[in-house]
Amino acid sequence: MSKNNVVYVGSKPIMNYCMAVIESLRHSDSVALKARGRAISRAVDVAEVTRNRYLSGVKVESIDIMTEELDSHDGDTRNVSAITILLRNEG
Amino acid sequence: MSKNNVVYVGSKPIMNYCMAVIESLRHSDSVALKARGRAISRAVDVAEVTRNRYLSGVKVESIDIMTEELDSHDGDTRNVSAITILLRNEG
Repeated sequence: MSKNNVVYVGSKPIMNYCMAVIESLRHSDSVALKARGRAISRAVDVAEVTRNRYLSGVKVESIDIMTEELDSHDGDTRNVSAITILLRNEG
Repeated sequence: MSKNNVVYVGSKPIMNYCMAVIESLRHSDSVALKARGRAISRAVDVAEVTRNRYLSGVKVESIDIMTEELDSHDGDTRNVSAITILLRNEG
Protein backbone atom coordinates (compact mmCIF):
# COMPACT_ATOMS: atom_id res chain seq x y z
CA MET A 1 0.00 0.00 0.00
CA SER A 2 1.50 3.33 -1.03
CA LYS A 3 1.66 6.32 1.28
CA ASN A 4 -1.19 7.93 -0.62
CA ASN A 5 -3.47 5.20 0.63
CA VAL A 6 -3.07 6.00 4.31
CA VAL A 7 -5.04 8.78 5.97
CA TYR A 8 -3.72 9.74 9.41
CA VAL A 9 -6.55 11.03 11.59
CA GLY A 10 -5.68 13.72 14.13
CA SER A 11 -7.53 16.63 15.69
CA LYS A 12 -8.88 18.37 12.57
CA PRO A 13 -12.62 18.34 11.77
CA ILE A 14 -14.00 14.99 10.64
CA MET A 15 -14.90 16.31 7.19
CA ASN A 16 -11.24 17.03 6.35
CA TYR A 17 -10.46 13.36 6.73
CA CYS A 18 -13.61 12.24 4.91
CA MET A 19 -12.51 14.31 1.92
CA ALA A 20 -9.03 12.75 2.07
CA VAL A 21 -10.58 9.26 2.10
CA ILE A 22 -12.85 10.05 -0.84
CA GLU A 23 -9.91 11.47 -2.79
CA SER A 24 -7.78 8.39 -2.04
CA LEU A 25 -10.53 6.07 -3.23
CA ARG A 26 -10.60 7.83 -6.60
CA HIS A 27 -7.15 6.37 -7.28
CA SER A 28 -7.25 3.15 -5.32
CA ASP A 29 -9.59 0.39 -4.21
CA SER A 30 -8.65 0.71 -0.57
CA VAL A 31 -7.49 3.19 2.02
CA ALA A 32 -6.26 2.77 5.60
CA LEU A 33 -7.39 5.13 8.36
CA LYS A 34 -4.82 5.33 11.15
CA ALA A 35 -5.19 7.08 14.50
CA ARG A 36 -3.70 7.08 17.98
CA GLY A 37 -5.03 7.96 21.41
CA ARG A 38 -8.08 10.18 21.55
CA ALA A 39 -8.16 10.48 17.76
CA ILE A 40 -9.29 6.83 17.61
CA SER A 41 -12.91 7.89 18.14
CA ARG A 42 -12.59 10.39 15.32
CA ALA A 43 -11.20 7.73 12.95
CA VAL A 44 -14.31 5.62 13.61
CA ASP A 45 -16.47 8.70 12.91
CA VAL A 46 -14.62 9.27 9.61
CA ALA A 47 -15.22 5.68 8.52
CA GLU A 48 -18.90 5.78 9.46
CA VAL A 49 -19.65 9.20 7.97
CA THR A 50 -17.85 8.33 4.73
CA ARG A 51 -19.81 5.10 4.36
CA ASN A 52 -23.20 6.42 5.44
CA ARG A 53 -23.17 9.82 3.77
CA TYR A 54 -20.86 9.73 0.77
CA LEU A 55 -19.77 6.32 -0.49
CA SER A 56 -22.25 3.57 0.29
CA GLY A 57 -20.13 1.06 -1.63
CA VAL A 58 -17.32 1.37 0.89
CA LYS A 59 -16.96 -1.55 3.29
CA VAL A 60 -14.85 -2.01 6.39
CA GLU A 61 -12.44 -4.73 5.37
CA SER A 62 -10.57 -5.06 8.65
CA ILE A 63 -9.96 -3.26 11.93
CA ASP A 64 -6.80 -3.74 13.97
CA ILE A 65 -5.92 -2.29 17.36
CA MET A 66 -2.42 -2.15 18.75
CA THR A 67 -0.19 -0.43 21.29
CA GLU A 68 2.58 1.89 20.13
CA GLU A 69 5.48 3.30 22.14
CA LEU A 70 5.96 7.05 21.97
CA ASP A 71 9.04 8.90 23.20
CA SER A 72 7.94 11.58 25.61
CA HIS A 73 9.77 14.85 26.24
CA ASP A 74 11.43 13.63 29.43
CA GLY A 75 13.11 10.72 27.66
CA ASP A 76 10.71 8.08 28.90
CA THR A 77 8.50 6.04 26.62
CA ARG A 78 4.76 6.11 26.89
CA ASN A 79 2.31 3.56 25.55
CA VAL A 80 -0.55 4.75 23.38
CA SER A 81 -3.34 2.74 21.77
CA ALA A 82 -3.73 2.88 18.01
CA ILE A 83 -6.21 1.71 15.40
CA THR A 84 -6.06 0.90 11.71
CA ILE A 85 -9.35 0.76 9.81
CA LEU A 86 -9.01 -0.61 6.29
CA LEU A 87 -11.75 0.59 3.94
CA ARG A 88 -12.41 -0.98 0.55
CA ASN A 89 -14.51 0.49 -2.23
CA GLU A 90 -16.75 -2.24 -3.60
CA GLY A 91 -19.24 0.10 -5.22
CA MET B 1 -24.04 -13.81 25.10
CA SER B 2 -25.50 -12.97 28.48
CA LYS B 3 -25.56 -9.45 29.90
CA ASN B 4 -22.69 -10.31 32.21
CA ASN B 5 -20.46 -10.71 29.20
CA VAL B 6 -20.81 -7.15 28.00
CA VAL B 7 -18.75 -4.34 29.50
CA TYR B 8 -20.00 -0.86 28.57
CA VAL B 9 -17.12 1.59 28.53
CA GLY B 10 -17.89 5.19 29.53
CA SER B 11 -15.96 7.96 31.20
CA LYS B 12 -14.61 6.15 34.27
CA PRO B 13 -10.89 5.36 34.61
CA ILE B 14 -9.59 2.64 32.30
CA MET B 15 -8.70 0.35 35.19
CA ASN B 16 -12.35 0.08 36.29
CA TYR B 17 -13.22 -1.46 32.94
CA CYS B 18 -10.11 -3.67 32.88
CA MET B 19 -11.19 -5.14 36.21
CA ALA B 20 -14.71 -5.74 34.85
CA VAL B 21 -13.24 -7.52 31.81
CA ILE B 22 -10.99 -9.70 33.97
CA GLU B 23 -13.92 -10.58 36.24
CA SER B 24 -16.11 -11.46 33.23
CA LEU B 25 -13.42 -13.74 31.83
CA ARG B 26 -13.34 -15.74 35.07
CA HIS B 27 -16.84 -17.00 34.22
CA SER B 28 -16.80 -16.97 30.43
CA ASP B 29 -14.50 -17.49 27.47
CA SER B 30 -15.40 -14.18 25.88
CA VAL B 31 -16.47 -10.65 26.70
CA ALA B 32 -17.66 -7.76 24.52
CA LEU B 33 -16.46 -4.21 25.12
CA LYS B 34 -18.99 -1.66 23.88
CA ALA B 35 -18.54 2.10 23.66
CA ARG B 36 -19.97 5.12 21.88
CA GLY B 37 -18.58 8.49 20.86
CA ARG B 38 -15.47 9.67 22.65
CA ALA B 39 -15.44 6.56 24.86
CA ILE B 40 -14.41 4.53 21.79
CA SER B 41 -10.75 5.46 22.37
CA ARG B 42 -11.04 4.33 25.97
CA ALA B 43 -12.52 0.96 24.92
CA VAL B 44 -9.45 0.37 22.74
CA ASP B 45 -7.25 1.30 25.71
CA VAL B 46 -9.12 -1.19 27.91
CA ALA B 47 -8.62 -3.98 25.39
CA GLU B 48 -4.92 -3.20 24.93
CA VAL B 49 -4.12 -2.74 28.63
CA THR B 50 -5.98 -5.93 29.57
CA ARG B 51 -4.08 -7.95 26.97
CA ASN B 52 -0.66 -6.43 27.51
CA ARG B 53 -0.63 -6.10 31.28
CA TYR B 54 -2.97 -8.68 32.76
CA LEU B 55 -4.15 -11.49 30.50
CA SER B 56 -1.73 -12.27 27.72
CA GLY B 57 -3.93 -15.16 26.56
CA VAL B 58 -6.71 -12.79 25.58
CA LYS B 59 -7.10 -12.21 21.85
CA VAL B 60 -9.18 -9.74 19.90
CA GLU B 61 -11.68 -11.96 18.11
CA SER B 62 -13.51 -9.27 16.17
CA ILE B 63 -14.04 -5.52 16.04
CA ASP B 64 -17.17 -3.95 14.61
CA ILE B 65 -17.98 -0.29 14.13
CA MET B 66 -21.45 1.07 13.59
CA THR B 67 -23.62 4.18 13.78
CA GLU B 68 -26.34 4.46 16.43
CA GLU B 69 -29.17 6.98 16.63
CA LEU B 70 -29.57 8.79 19.93
CA ASP B 71 -32.57 10.88 20.91
CA SER B 72 -31.39 14.31 21.94
CA HIS B 73 -33.12 16.59 24.44
CA ASP B 74 -34.77 18.73 21.76
CA GLY B 75 -36.53 15.75 20.22
CA ASP B 76 -34.17 15.37 17.28
CA THR B 77 -32.08 12.32 16.70
CA ARG B 78 -28.31 12.50 16.56
CA ASN B 79 -25.95 9.96 15.05
CA VAL B 80 -23.11 8.64 17.14
CA SER B 81 -20.39 6.15 16.21
CA ALA B 82 -20.06 2.99 18.27
CA ILE B 83 -17.62 0.09 18.58
CA THR B 84 -17.84 -3.49 19.78
CA ILE B 85 -14.58 -5.25 20.59
CA LEU B 86 -15.00 -8.97 21.22
CA LEU B 87 -12.26 -10.44 23.41
CA ARG B 88 -11.68 -14.16 23.80
CA ASN B 89 -9.56 -15.85 26.45
CA GLU B 90 -7.41 -18.48 24.80
CA GLY B 91 -4.87 -18.72 27.62
